[in-house]
Amino acid sequence: MSRDAPRGRAAYRHFATITLRWADNDAYGHVNNTVYYAWFDSAVNAWLVGHGLLDIAAGDPIGLVVETGCRFFAPLAFPGEVEVGIAIERIGTSSVTYRLGVFAAGADDPAAEGHFSHVYVDRAQRRPVPLPDAWRETLSALE
Amino acid sequence: MSRDAPRGRAAYRHFATITLRWADNDAYGHVNNTVYYAWFDSAVNAWLVGHGLLDIAAGDPIGLVVETGCRFFAPLAFPGEVEVGIAIERIGTSSVTYRLGVFAAGADDPAAEGHFSHVYVDRAQRRPVPLPDAWRETLSALE
Amino acid sequence: MSRDAPRGRAAYRHFATITLRWADNDAYGHVNNTVYYAWFDSAVNAWLVGHGLLDIAAGDPIGLVVETGCRFFAPLAFPGEVEVGIAIERIGTSSVTYRLGVFAAGADDPAAEGHFSHVYVDRAQRRPVPLPDAWRETLSALE
Amino acid sequence: MSRDAPRGRAAYRHFATITLRWADNDAYGHVNNTVYYAWFDSAVNAWLVGHGLLDIAAGDPIGLVVETGCRFFAPLAFPGEVEVGIAIERIGTSSVTYRLGVFAAGADDPAAEGHFSHVYVDRAQRRPVPLPDAWRETLSALE
Repeated sequence: MSRDAPRGRAAYRHFATITLRWADNDAYGHVNNTVYYAWFDSAVNAWLVGHGLLDIAAGDPIGLVVETGCRFFAPLAFPGEVEVGIAIERIGTSSVTYRLGVFAAGADDPAAEGHFSHVYVDRAQRRPVPLPDAWRETLSALE
Repeated sequence: MSRDAPRGRAAYRHFATITLRWADNDAYGHVNNTVYYAWFDSAVNAWLVGHGLLDIAAGDPIGLVVETGCRFFAPLAFPGEVEVGIAIERIGTSSVTYRLGVFAAGADDPAAEGHFSHVYVDRAQRRPVPLPDAWRETLSALE
Repeated sequence: MSRDAPRGRAAYRHFATITLRWADNDAYGHVNNTVYYAWFDSAVNAWLVGHGLLDIAAGDPIGLVVETGCRFFAPLAFPGEVEVGIAIERIGTSSVTYRLGVFAAGADDPAAEGHFSHVYVDRAQRRPVPLPDAWRETLSALE
Repeated sequence: MSRDAPRGRAAYRHFATITLRWADNDAYGHVNNTVYYAWFDSAVNAWLVGHGLLDIAAGDPIGLVVETGCRFFAPLAFPGEVEVGIAIERIGTSSVTYRLGVFAAGADDPAAEGHFSHVYVDRAQRRPVPLPDAWRETLSALE
């Protein structure tokens, strides 16, 4: 279990605003831990689509998730919005590890902090491919 | 199966904007039918909380879903946003049937149209209670 | 809102057993209404795959959901299992309307009852196609 | 990113069988990464309820998730079942870290491996409490 202090907003290069949903709250009345990972998936992939890199339906490569993790610091609850910060922790030959932070709307301190590692693969065979130069250049905005 | 023509935006009194999520898309690459119901739940309950009627954690009454239905006209897909229109179709002694329409951002024609019936119950016993006057008055904005 | 009495187990031709999940319970501590629709999707599609009709990844036709509805009679809660009954209500040229009933494990009376209409379309264009004879014959087991 | 080799079935003390659902498959036709965490939540909490420790609706303490992580080795897809192995990695004063492994039905090698840390808190204040002796004794079956 990592003991590092949570990072503030300055650690992120882009923020995605996500509306909470009724079913995000679990039986304890707060957002379930799995939902944070759904936000990570959404924030990273929306950024990739929005910057012309990922085409979910037909493009190549696609990104498969090989490792994720999250530490939870404070509860969140529907209704409302969260802001999910994204930055790149590390770019490898075929993979990118993103750093993510979840902030209640307007909050300075994160409610949760995680990482999300994508390996980029060809759509048909799903084997790792070197990250295309266009991806590398565009992704540098998140470093 | 209802054969009524889908209703346009004028049939709704309030619109909730909801951000799509990666996992909304199913194996066919479009938003899964169950997600529309998750939006209905979110739009109705966020309105009730936002207008001071519903307190999910501690208030009384709470609304339990007794019937829902939806017709699907056109596919939607992550990433993006939808606008979910709400209006009241019928108010009974203890129940409210909401009419809902899902619109792709900016679209005139709905992607789906549904209904969502809540019966209002006391939190402890979960038996129907007459809708409080304050609820009735506030809800009239959706009629 | 339909006033028909709920149907018992005899109204169904096949039962799918589904394990409940933590996140099925919502903030009110019972299974959220949207989850029943997730079970409908799962029960119908697993039957179609298991009987050699549907190939989700590559087959033709595929089934798109055009209308669903559900009435909720009694709460359910994780942990545990449910049995989801399936039968066919109506077969059209390109569409099938399934009747579904959700039963707590071993219960005689349903916790919920719904319908689920699929239109079968070609994978590429997603336009309705006549239901193939092999589908019609196999599906007759659910009538 | 951990480089440890994935653990086989012998690393686990209990296996929960979970039925896959249609919506577990995402746009790439395999089970979405967030779903594995939903299984972790389900396997751990069902075990706790089934052994008389956790009462989701009214008991004390309850378990809140403070950290999770998962490595993904091989894809899974609906329809079918998975077996989720559970064991205890570490018991602290108020917290338990569970080790989890997801196996396709009958497989020797895991499709994914993760950890899931619960801190046990009193229901009202949600502050950590020492793990009760009865919990400690019962949980020893998972060590």
